[in-house]
Amino acid sequence: MKRIMLTVAYDGTAYHGWQVQPNGETIEGVLNRCLSDLLQEKIEVTGASRTDSGVHALCNIAVFDTDTSIPPQKLAYALNARLPDDIRIQASKETAPDFHPRHCDSRKTYEYRIYHAQVPMPTERLYTYFTYTPLKLEKMREAAAHFVGTHDFKSFCNTDSQVQDTVRQIESVEVMENGSRITLRVAGRGFLYNMVRIMAGTLLEVGRGHIEPEEIPRIIEARDRDAAGPTAPACGLTLVKYEFL
Amino acid sequence: MKRIMLTVAYDGTAYHGWQVQPNGETIEGVLNRCLSDLLQEKIEVTGASRTDSGVHALCNIAVFDTDTSIPPQKLAYALNARLPDDIRIQASKETAPDFHPRHCDSRKTYEYRIYHAQVPMPTERLYTYFTYTPLKLEKMREAAAHFVGTHDFKSFCNTDSQVQDTVRQIESVEVMENGSRITLRVAGRGFLYNMVRIMAGTLLEVGRGHIEPEEIPRIIEARDRDAAGPTAPACGLTLVKYEFL
Repeated sequence: MKRIMLTVAYDGTAYHGWQVQPNGETIEGVLNRCLSDLLQEKIEVTGASRTDSGVHALCNIAVFDTDTSIPPQKLAYALNARLPDDIRIQASKETAPDFHPRHCDSRKTYEYRIYHAQVPMPTERLYTYFTYTPLKLEKMREAAAHFVGTHDFKSFCNTDSQVQDTVRQIESVEVMENGSRITLRVAGRGFLYNMVRIMAGTLLEVGRGHIEPEEIPRIIEARDRDAAGPTAPACGLTLVKYEFL
Repeated sequence: MKRIMLTVAYDGTAYHGWQVQPNGETIEGVLNRCLSDLLQEKIEVTGASRTDSGVHALCNIAVFDTDTSIPPQKLAYALNARLPDDIRIQASKETAPDFHPRHCDSRKTYEYRIYHAQVPMPTERLYTYFTYTPLKLEKMREAAAHFVGTHDFKSFCNTDSQVQDTVRQIESVEVMENGSRITLRVAGRGFLYNMVRIMAGTLLEVGRGHIEPEEIPRIIEARDRDAAGPTAPACGLTLVKYEFL
């Protein structure tokens, strides 16, 4: 028996998120089915980031145990031949038998991508959030700086979440502009349920002038979901980097 | 009666190209139907670039005549409310009654986008051509320079084309690299059927070392489709700029 680690990229458009659920296809469900077919064993993967419905990833992590004799590095190719083209294993390798992708020191980087123009651009629609309202980027940058550090982010956590400890460490929040594309790039040691989307929704409210940058510390201190801005739409969010520390 | 010019952006993935045809949905067909419904007149648009099945555009041009009292600039908004989300009118305005988008001096710029890595990236799959073979970009740049100028491009024209005069003027061909993305950017005064895709397919053969850059003049002189490389897949091609001169 060995433990295999997969680096999984996907276009989340057609999926009901990562985690297996009774209604609708999920990334985890497709991986379990294709791996079980390939290896002729019952496989259940464990994911690093349980991304929401419609969220994308360049590099999510999945681990599973197997008795297969297929060399670990070759599993990516064998599995890609069975996967739909909106999921692709970027790499596969053997990992420590006790490695758990959610109980290890890691840094995740997410990008929230905004297409900012008068009219939506069809070729951007699947991977960005469209808005035509004027956005003050300098205000957004000022607000973003307040998120950096170790804070109780309860105001930025979906109220459906069961998690008790809502303290998280955010290492950086960048606001980048490239033509009509605005990218919010957030790196941290761990994230709460919907945290990046609520941060993005709040930064958009700042950009629109509905929240002032200096209100962010008060919003964090409130520890109240209602104090923060709305949850920005899922299609704008992509997990872009996963680092083990 | 006035003549209206639309700037049309689309994701070509789901369409059988621009031009109306008996089997399958086309961009022109959708525009004709939605415009006729909106204006309660029979509308038939004329397009600038009759893009192939699967090709994308940020700014194709369509013109049509109408008796509507809707102000020309407002037509974009009214039409977008009826169009599927993979087609969006970027702008609408009145133009000269004798303006024809294919019989006027213009410069078109196309990008042929390549995703170059060991494994395909799902979020790139709809708008790039994937290849994992090593590509020598310097050789591709050397080859690309031979296309610039006024040449008989018969070797770079689909043999189904009825066109007699195969002389065209190419103003620039750039080969750009940004991480795993390689972009071939081609600007010219007019293009033959499949011309950019055959140029891209030929440049890819150069990058792979199957054609030497110094063979390009001979391939052009041959005036024979079989002398050039294969037609690169449609999904990599996007019309990115349209300028009236």
